[in-house]
Amino acid sequence: MSRTSRLVLPILAVLLSAGAMRADEGMWTFDNLPSKKMQAKYGFAPDQAWLDHVRLSSLRFPGGSGSFVSKDGLVLTNHHVGRSWTQSVSGPGEKDYIKNGFVAKDRAAEIKVPGLELYTLMQMDNVTERVAKATQGAKSDKDAQKARETELDKLKKETQDKTGLTSEVVSLYQGGEYWIYSYKKHTDVRLVMAPEGQIAFFGGDPDNFTYPRHNLDFTLFRVYENDKPYNPAHHLTWTQGGLKSGDMTFVTGHPGSTARLETTAQMKMTRDVAFPNRLKAVEKQIKFLKAFGAQDPEKARQVSSQVFGLENTHKAISGYLVGLKNAEAMTKIEKAEKELQAKVAKDPKLAATTGQSWTKIAGAMTAARAMAKDSAYVNTRGSQLLGGALNLVRLADEEPKADDKRLAEFKDVNLKRMKMMLGMAPRNFNKELEIASFTFGLQEALDELGPNHEFVKAMLGSRKPAEVAKEAVEGTKLTDAAARKALMEGGKKALAESKDPMILLAKKLDPLGRKLREKQETLVSSVVTEHGGRIAKARFAAYGKENYPDATFSLRMSYGAVESYPANGTKIQPFTTMAGLYDRAWGWGDKAENGSWALPQRWQDRKGALDMSTPFNFVHTMDIIGGNSGSPVVDKKGELVGLIFDGNIESLPGRYYYDEKINRAVSVDARAISEALAKVYDAHHLVTELNGK
Amino acid sequence: MSRTSRLVLPILAVLLSAGAMRADEGMWTFDNLPSKKMQAKYGFAPDQAWLDHVRLSSLRFPGGSGSFVSKDGLVLTNHHVGRSWTQSVSGPGEKDYIKNGFVAKDRAAEIKVPGLELYTLMQMDNVTERVAKATQGAKSDKDAQKARETELDKLKKETQDKTGLTSEVVSLYQGGEYWIYSYKKHTDVRLVMAPEGQIAFFGGDPDNFTYPRHNLDFTLFRVYENDKPYNPAHHLTWTQGGLKSGDMTFVTGHPGSTARLETTAQMKMTRDVAFPNRLKAVEKQIKFLKAFGAQDPEKARQVSSQVFGLENTHKAISGYLVGLKNAEAMTKIEKAEKELQAKVAKDPKLAATTGQSWTKIAGAMTAARAMAKDSAYVNTRGSQLLGGALNLVRLADEEPKADDKRLAEFKDVNLKRMKMMLGMAPRNFNKELEIASFTFGLQEALDELGPNHEFVKAMLGSRKPAEVAKEAVEGTKLTDAAARKALMEGGKKALAESKDPMILLAKKLDPLGRKLREKQETLVSSVVTEHGGRIAKARFAAYGKENYPDATFSLRMSYGAVESYPANGTKIQPFTTMAGLYDRAWGWGDKAENGSWALPQRWQDRKGALDMSTPFNFVHTMDIIGGNSGSPVVDKKGELVGLIFDGNIESLPGRYYYDEKINRAVSVDARAISEALAKVYDAHHLVTELNGK
Repeated sequence: MSRTSRLVLPILAVLLSAGAMRADEGMWTFDNLPSKKMQAKYGFAPDQAWLDHVRLSSLRFPGGSGSFVSKDGLVLTNHHVGRSWTQSVSGPGEKDYIKNGFVAKDRAAEIKVPGLELYTLMQMDNVTERVAKATQGAKSDKDAQKARETELDKLKKETQDKTGLTSEVVSLYQGGEYWIYSYKKHTDVRLVMAPEGQIAFFGGDPDNFTYPRHNLDFTLFRVYENDKPYNPAHHLTWTQGGLKSGDMTFVTGHPGSTARLETTAQMKMTRDVAFPNRLKAVEKQIKFLKAFGAQDPEKARQVSSQVFGLENTHKAISGYLVGLKNAEAMTKIEKAEKELQAKVAKDPKLAATTGQSWTKIAGAMTAARAMAKDSAYVNTRGSQLLGGALNLVRLADEEPKADDKRLAEFKDVNLKRMKMMLGMAPRNFNKELEIASFTFGLQEALDELGPNHEFVKAMLGSRKPAEVAKEAVEGTKLTDAAARKALMEGGKKALAESKDPMILLAKKLDPLGRKLREKQETLVSSVVTEHGGRIAKARFAAYGKENYPDATFSLRMSYGAVESYPANGTKIQPFTTMAGLYDRAWGWGDKAENGSWALPQRWQDRKGALDMSTPFNFVHTMDIIGGNSGSPVVDKKGELVGLIFDGNIESLPGRYYYDEKINRAVSVDARAISEALAKVYDAHHLVTELNGK
Repeated sequence: MSRTSRLVLPILAVLLSAGAMRADEGMWTFDNLPSKKMQAKYGFAPDQAWLDHVRLSSLRFPGGSGSFVSKDGLVLTNHHVGRSWTQSVSGPGEKDYIKNGFVAKDRAAEIKVPGLELYTLMQMDNVTERVAKATQGAKSDKDAQKARETELDKLKKETQDKTGLTSEVVSLYQGGEYWIYSYKKHTDVRLVMAPEGQIAFFGGDPDNFTYPRHNLDFTLFRVYENDKPYNPAHHLTWTQGGLKSGDMTFVTGHPGSTARLETTAQMKMTRDVAFPNRLKAVEKQIKFLKAFGAQDPEKARQVSSQVFGLENTHKAISGYLVGLKNAEAMTKIEKAEKELQAKVAKDPKLAATTGQSWTKIAGAMTAARAMAKDSAYVNTRGSQLLGGALNLVRLADEEPKADDKRLAEFKDVNLKRMKMMLGMAPRNFNKELEIASFTFGLQEALDELGPNHEFVKAMLGSRKPAEVAKEAVEGTKLTDAAARKALMEGGKKALAESKDPMILLAKKLDPLGRKLREKQETLVSSVVTEHGGRIAKARFAAYGKENYPDATFSLRMSYGAVESYPANGTKIQPFTTMAGLYDRAWGWGDKAENGSWALPQRWQDRKGALDMSTPFNFVHTMDIIGGNSGSPVVDKKGELVGLIFDGNIESLPGRYYYDEKINRAVSVDARAISEALAKVYDAHHLVTELNGK
């Protein structure tokens, strides 16, 4: 959490599709760009050749995006998208490429990154009609579902066989459209150049999610085929001019998920209950960890990354909450909801399927509000060991069941990994911190649920949190891999006989946790999934492709312009420059906030060589979200002018709606990359290659 | 409004004194510094010699502050404090010193500034006991008041005679203490050096009231005596080191007014009614003026400074309102109020005088709420000419009255100026804009008050705003100085006979305006003055000098430290640097927002010579307000390290309370001044002088 931008793909949630469009809003599929709107506002809309060129230059990364930027398969993405891959080929000392950066002096020095696979979207086939035909005459919804799946599977295989590509089913507009997207997969990817982590993530956690920024957040990889640089049919030409304020830009990438079309009942539950509770819990947790860390520097070190993570979570949720509390925006969302409800009411068919859906979801939210405290506090209370114990207890119950009867985490697809984890001693285990965390967690449950709550009674009885935590952590054998394996292999009998205090606590927690989970699934999530889906389908029936579909981590295009926005009492500069990087570093000094604004040595040494007026980062009115990290920014000519890496703090509500007045994407300027490659990294060969020479 | 910082003294309002103190809060008199608190927090508190040195180096400017910074009487203040004086000795072309800046190449080239007078506070005499003695045995409040005034007048004259200084009565803690402050007056002041207005006010209106900033907001004057540079007994030594983050700083200057000890009833009225109404009116006015300006570039030019002024008003009021809406702060204020109320209730004497005062003021606020619409809309409705007409009508009525019976603006002290203004043709008169403004203003009154309101009926009858405005503006002779003079000299008779349409409207407005004014004075302002005074006296009785007195534009000291604050999703850098200046200029370009971030030519030419890491502006936890503009910032050694020029946007609520977490003063770093004098202005002689060589 703490060291990655939110534009990397987070876990996917249930998603709903879009309402009334505002200017520059939308994550559009390549078959359905709002060309008229673009033309009207910017006097330009891309033609098919332009679109094909940009699409075929774009790449999907694991959890992010990228693009081809040379005829020899050079690939541009964010440092934070490539970070774990760069890390994976790093070593200690000189080979710590996150700390030191890395420049391959020639192609022979490029480092193969095992496991990294990139995808180019070569072909998109709309198979909606064929799917519709296949489900005609199905006797039930279940039959239809089965027929649909069979047909899609067949279509996917057909396409793969025909093209030799890797095909995927893409469901858009919640089943309003079905597509087969076919990708060329690149499996030999090598690290070419990465700047120091400190310049890529300059400003650190404090500046994360904000602007003005000065982050050189890029990394270059190269795709190989048969041990030779791959020559893609298309790559983005590196700009020779660059952007200025007001210029139109386009972004291609893979937005992962939004919550824009939750019903207002859902948003209000989140606003009034879920997020405030979460913020309160995070605040208490931060306070606890800081107090723990205040005891001595070593303890401070132990908790520091957890504290950073929580502070970033706090920042993000606070930002979402600002959005949900924005009266003007919420009024618009309510208006759009009412409009759709009216359309549904007028259409007998829609009214039959969806007329009650908003009420049903509102009911689910009432249920969610009622069980919010239990949802927050009936769990393993911050104890790593109790977490393990609970899974051991459940594994013995679940594994013998048929796959479709098991809890999700014990289904075959997850079982191997679960068992591997359960058989290992806990990582980075710290007994003192574990006791303190568990004590804190139990105390919190006691404070929030009261002494008479069945969970509190089960865990504490009449004892104090500190006693229970200390006894369980000190008495358990679950820190030992052999003891865990023995319990795992001993199954139900071994668990029944175990006197391990953590196992005993887990056996008390298990039935309460299952009961709560059952209640959440019956009363809340199943209702939201079913009726959220109906509403989405009704929306597609009412508006069709006038709207963009939900983000689904499939390739999309956003558009807009470089533009300032009002904040901090003034208007924010559209571009930052190299001079601003040094201003920030000097203005803070290299010690402040754990060195967040410290400059790498190379950047101190090469200062004199740099053109300080070089644009560094910029903001533009792009509708993007997690998964867009590493997306290329192109201009009207289709040339590469920048690289998406974050949004401003005002873009956090983008999870719920797009506000063109203040929501801005933050990008690295292509000119900063060229300048740094030439003047800081002596990578003239890469500059030459990027310039197509 | 638009071209000056809010730290220049605004019009003085009725002021009340301070409640519970938080760290670094307070505008302290030199006889009563919170030395223990300073010592406890910073391990340092000034001794008497330090205080005398800093006080005797400090200066009062008209509406602002300054300091002696060389043994030859060099004086440092803000460019915006000196601006009108610099303007007054400027001319066209080369001599436009606001545009071009000014550097006297030697002392002979320094330009005498007629009318500019500076004051050093030489002596402070506490005369509270003598005043108390003089009022002993007074038979009534009125007698006591008379005796007090007589005694203070006598004491002032005595002190003047004895010292040869200029003495003033200073009432602190609303009469809890009386002092005679005696000043040395400096009447020969010459302009030595002023940078270009554009670098002094870099960032223009958008950046005004904000931080991070890059303003070289200073000007140097020199005091002369007998045509020779004056040698003050004390001046501030220019720092050779400079500040770093966390360093303690002190500010001496003349804070003018706060509203911190209004009752919560007053603050709530302001929060709920007065400010929202004002914001709404300002927004409508801006919209109107922009629409007028949108017709053509010349019209845009005509309204531009008015629009800027209104936008700044909007920014300031919005900032105040953020403060009044801050629940945490308001809770603290309410708590302090309750605490004082409890102390008053316990003390029979205080209970007798002040026990009802909060209720009385709350009643006045209820009245103010009830008449808020009339207060906002029953007036001359944006017509410059109707304003003149009304004053002409009233002059004829008021002038014959005894001075103490007249409306304030016609009392002897104001009469001469009033008559001079009335006899002149209106300045910058634009007939088309006047008609449009008046139409807009009448329409607004009609919309807000409704057609049946007596004011609306009087002004419009059954006619349309545009008709009435057009007829009055086109038909009036009040654009002509001779016509105005004739009416002024003709008195009641001439006015009675006048058929001038503006005069006719003024005669309708006059009785309604007088009636409203009478009501405001009886029900609101007299109650607030009387009971606000009683509460302030009770506060002094309860807390004594544990608190600082209200700001009264007398010399005060604030203290605190250089410190970042949270904003914009991150933490804000404590210092900006020269590099940041160029970053901002390049990031915006020189055309944006009317060239707000354009660099003067000299700053473009000399860029290469500058040390870009030179600190430029910085923020510190100082409790300051309007009147503190130009205040010296000194370090523990008492050396000059900076120059106050503004506060961050979060400091606007400082009008109501001091919030150490986010309220920051913004200062020019002394090192930026030295660097600029040497490298940009070739003023090496001044650098040498400032360095005491």
